[in-house]
Amino acid sequence: MKKINVAIVGLGGRGKGNLSCILHSIENIVVTAVCDVFEDRCDEGEKIVVEAGGAAPYKNCDYTKVISRSDVDVVMVFTSWETHIKIAIDAMKAGKAVGMEVGGAASVDECWDLVHTWEETKVPFMMLENCCFGRNELMVRNMVRSGLFGEIVHCHGAYAHDLREEVSTGKERRHYRLNHYLNENCDNYPTHDLGPIAKILDINRGNRMVRLVSMASKAAGLKRYIKDREEIFVNKELIGKDFAQGDIVNTLITCENGETISLTLDTTLPRSYSREFTVRGTRGMYEENTNSVYLDGEPENFITVEHYQKVINNAKDYEDKYLPESWKKMTQKIKELGHDGMDYFEFCAFFDAIANDKPMPVDVYDAASWMCISALTKESIAKGNIPMEIPDFTCGAWKTRKRFDV
Amino acid sequence: MKKINVAIVGLGGRGKGNLSCILHSIENIVVTAVCDVFEDRCDEGEKIVVEAGGAAPYKNCDYTKVISRSDVDVVMVFTSWETHIKIAIDAMKAGKAVGMEVGGAASVDECWDLVHTWEETKVPFMMLENCCFGRNELMVRNMVRSGLFGEIVHCHGAYAHDLREEVSTGKERRHYRLNHYLNENCDNYPTHDLGPIAKILDINRGNRMVRLVSMASKAAGLKRYIKDREEIFVNKELIGKDFAQGDIVNTLITCENGETISLTLDTTLPRSYSREFTVRGTRGMYEENTNSVYLDGEPENFITVEHYQKVINNAKDYEDKYLPESWKKMTQKIKELGHDGMDYFEFCAFFDAIANDKPMPVDVYDAASWMCISALTKESIAKGNIPMEIPDFTCGAWKTRKRFDV
Repeated sequence: MKKINVAIVGLGGRGKGNLSCILHSIENIVVTAVCDVFEDRCDEGEKIVVEAGGAAPYKNCDYTKVISRSDVDVVMVFTSWETHIKIAIDAMKAGKAVGMEVGGAASVDECWDLVHTWEETKVPFMMLENCCFGRNELMVRNMVRSGLFGEIVHCHGAYAHDLREEVSTGKERRHYRLNHYLNENCDNYPTHDLGPIAKILDINRGNRMVRLVSMASKAAGLKRYIKDREEIFVNKELIGKDFAQGDIVNTLITCENGETISLTLDTTLPRSYSREFTVRGTRGMYEENTNSVYLDGEPENFITVEHYQKVINNAKDYEDKYLPESWKKMTQKIKELGHDGMDYFEFCAFFDAIANDKPMPVDVYDAASWMCISALTKESIAKGNIPMEIPDFTCGAWKTRKRFDV
Repeated sequence: MKKINVAIVGLGGRGKGNLSCILHSIENIVVTAVCDVFEDRCDEGEKIVVEAGGAAPYKNCDYTKVISRSDVDVVMVFTSWETHIKIAIDAMKAGKAVGMEVGGAASVDECWDLVHTWEETKVPFMMLENCCFGRNELMVRNMVRSGLFGEIVHCHGAYAHDLREEVSTGKERRHYRLNHYLNENCDNYPTHDLGPIAKILDINRGNRMVRLVSMASKAAGLKRYIKDREEIFVNKELIGKDFAQGDIVNTLITCENGETISLTLDTTLPRSYSREFTVRGTRGMYEENTNSVYLDGEPENFITVEHYQKVINNAKDYEDKYLPESWKKMTQKIKELGHDGMDYFEFCAFFDAIANDKPMPVDVYDAASWMCISALTKESIAKGNIPMEIPDFTCGAWKTRKRFDV
């Protein structure tokens, strides 16, 4: 097998984790360059490569120097949200394959730029939406494809993750989330929940998202969190500061084929993590919050303790039939590579497509249509929850493009 | 104690159940008149009264005859949704106290008519929203009032109840729901979920609902349900018929004080019953689907089997401190009076207010603002999910009206 030369652009927490995952699990990979706007992060990236047995990679804080190198075949973009698309576009224009981390888009225009650049260059491009490779997501996808739930009518998902510590200590961490939360109000991180749902609903492949409305609650969570810890809080200038980002952002999306999607961003109030992945059909449903399957004809239960005890986690009874083989073979080693194993599957798919010239399972149309939700929710919220048309980035090709599952 | 003379208008399934509940649990009540558009139901109502030891009541299919009688002090309106407001208005104009069952309003205008009539007559009026007296709802209300969850930011609720059999056999049952589902598309039943949330958020008393947007999924559930049973289905003309009512209707509401509310109508797909009652604050949350409480500072859990097993039903640990005494004293007899006991509490509150000249815990402003959601969601959906202003039925008085809990 020919070696694939990889440049890593962006070496914050996620970038370093991804770099390790790739180095320790994907064969025929050589990391030839590392890049971050912070020099110490470049050094850390180099160290990770060398400790994994690689030669010291080229280092530069300027990504334009990295993407133009002849010893780079693939550019992995692990930077801050607001720079993903620009770097991906420049890398595509330099003829490099691109794997781009998730995040929202700042504008619809930059999503169009991404699409147009790919259509001009046709280099391999994938958005690295790891949740599309998640355990529950893939098992439920298989249930949907088998017809277990009948015709799908509605899906719900959330990015429900208490990020108050991460956001409020952003200055010390040099983390870009802080500025977003101070200054913007939107669903800033829609793809973890929307991605797997969009795949199930064949968005851009026989279906498309037509319109959304979005609503944000007040922003009270971070201010309270900081106030409650003011004695020990390092970044004193944040004490008493108002944040722009509403604590709960709910977005409703309607699709060409009549399905609806509801998304929730829920990151600044106390809670446990969930993606709240829920699929509703005419013959059954799956709900992640209780990991339960309910099929038409089963006895109706009421909300009692006995009900919870009966249905909680009953989805495990379906694993034998519907859980993908790759997840059945999950090992402790793969789990530790990141997010219980789904990062590994994602990188396998990406590098397999590059090595074998296959289409990407999450392509530029997926990326554009999922990422633009951030820009559209921002405008809907700012203008009093008005409906926003969602662009058809395929320019009509969704009508004939065929289903392509992960 | 002076006896209270009660007329029952509407003796379908719910009316008969309520009649029995009242007769077997409330003292100093005499049912002096029964009324339904169907004569056989009047006869059944009479039978229930007589079997409970009462004298045979006056019977008439014309409610205008009933509400004008001098031996009627209170008119209980248990009819079809679309007639609630008209009958309530006429009864108020006849000088009678009114207890009105729940349902949505067909127009905002009729909600104004209801409010104006009450303001002219000032007779006792209560909307009989039994879920405001629910076990979980009242316990969580107490948690909120104690400050356990900090500042409240968002609430969610649903009327999630598989009504496919009831709706599709509506013709045989003479049930009004069928026509609504054939011809309309809205959140047709918003008060079970919205009512307890509105009480928590002090709607019309220091706060108000400002604006909503609503979105409906396709209507596929009922058609599929009937098709799957066509061999045994009695009402053959419904086979293959399209319904107007979307299977899932999601509505987002923003409040004057910055809180948001999300509501879901979910009645024509297979599922178990839930009101999905969820309260989110800066220091904690309650979620009915898992009957769980999560407070700031507790370890964050991820979506694993262990997580479910740990948190499911942990709200029971809070009952000693927060469950109202009335619910702690719940007996099997009271439970059997209807909906696990909450119907009894509701009627106690209603007749107590009448007997002792107290203000009603769910008043005409509550009724109007909760019921108008149906009309507003219908228009929002019909016009492509546009935002709809929610009227201030208090005409500014919400700013100074004081909290009044159930």
